[in-house]
Amino acid sequence: MEEKEISQAVIGRLPRYFRYLGELKDSGIERISSQDLSGLMKVTASQIRQDFNNFGGFGQQGYGYNVEYLYSEIGKILGLDRLHYYIIIGAGNLGRALGNYTNFERRGFLLKGMFDQDPEKIGQKVREIQVRPMEELEDFIDANNIDIAVLTIPKAGAVEIAERLAGTQVRAIWNFAHVDLNVPEGIQVENVHLSDSLMKLSYNLNRYMQEHQKA
Amino acid sequence: MEEKEISQAVIGRLPRYFRYLGELKDSGIERISSQDLSGLMKVTASQIRQDFNNFGGFGQQGYGYNVEYLYSEIGKILGLDRLHYYIIIGAGNLGRALGNYTNFERRGFLLKGMFDQDPEKIGQKVREIQVRPMEELEDFIDANNIDIAVLTIPKAGAVEIAERLAGTQVRAIWNFAHVDLNVPEGIQVENVHLSDSLMKLSYNLNRYMQEHQKA
Repeated sequence: MEEKEISQAVIGRLPRYFRYLGELKDSGIERISSQDLSGLMKVTASQIRQDFNNFGGFGQQGYGYNVEYLYSEIGKILGLDRLHYYIIIGAGNLGRALGNYTNFERRGFLLKGMFDQDPEKIGQKVREIQVRPMEELEDFIDANNIDIAVLTIPKAGAVEIAERLAGTQVRAIWNFAHVDLNVPEGIQVENVHLSDSLMKLSYNLNRYMQEHQKA
Repeated sequence: MEEKEISQAVIGRLPRYFRYLGELKDSGIERISSQDLSGLMKVTASQIRQDFNNFGGFGQQGYGYNVEYLYSEIGKILGLDRLHYYIIIGAGNLGRALGNYTNFERRGFLLKGMFDQDPEKIGQKVREIQVRPMEELEDFIDANNIDIAVLTIPKAGAVEIAERLAGTQVRAIWNFAHVDLNVPEGIQVENVHLSDSLMKLSYNLNRYMQEHQKA
């Protein structure tokens, strides 16, 4: 099946649809119109229809979408119908926070290993997972069919680690290091640059304050 | 000065410009052309010029932008020329990770307090900051001129806490709870929904794998 290229903006909205549909499903709601979904999610109904049309529209009829079907289809599009095995590199507070998110497991993301270069952290446990030394990285990835690596290490080490990962079977990096990584084509990178997000908040805060001082 | 409404997409890109310009400045580079910046940041030069034109263009001449000036102007736009006082609500791993980011301080975001409802966490320290009970929230915000609250608590409590914050002088919420908050106009919210980000990565990973199985 040939699919057209879908914009990252649309893709970025899919998880939110998935989240709301999961809540509707858990509440026992079977059908929902794009109007009702629009009211709930505070996006326009036309945006919803446009987004869904990228994937064939999910067969909305006069009486709305089938919630369970829509939830399951969006889940498949997001790749949540298969298991992913991931490791966390960096066993500091952030790495441990992510390692403790059992929610990821429910979505099919299974934490298999944690790594750190700090001898004090090696051997510590996060849930049942023991922190390993960086020397074991490549062998562990090989042996455990890891496809996602989460980088929660400082900027300085991240570039080098990304290069090491590029030589393994890891095909996706979830990058919390505050640097843009250069990786070969074929490795997907999703950046979570926390201070960029804080600055965006700061912009909106200051902009609002300025407008209100003017008024 | 009347300013036009600037899209959140443009605003979302400003911190990245700020980050690259900071690195150029630290490397002693005084001027840079939009072409060179484009090569460095891997966005088109025309995108850069369009983005900057939202703010008057920052006076690029034939020989490029003045790095220090551009850095400082974007910093001002982002509100980094003034101090912000913030608190973290939720002293778990994620809250502690954020509390330990001394980088935020360099940008003018000063951590003043941490809160948790768990008696075991109350009294613990993150850097010099002691975790306080939730009962003290409103008084503390008042007494310490807090304008930003960081929510690193589970979804269930976040909605209620956001309502409490709405009654205080807090004007911005950096929300890590996996729920969209309903707050009155005048409170800015920036969401970091980590599992949404992971799902986006998963989409791109699976999409790439599918395309390569086809080929």
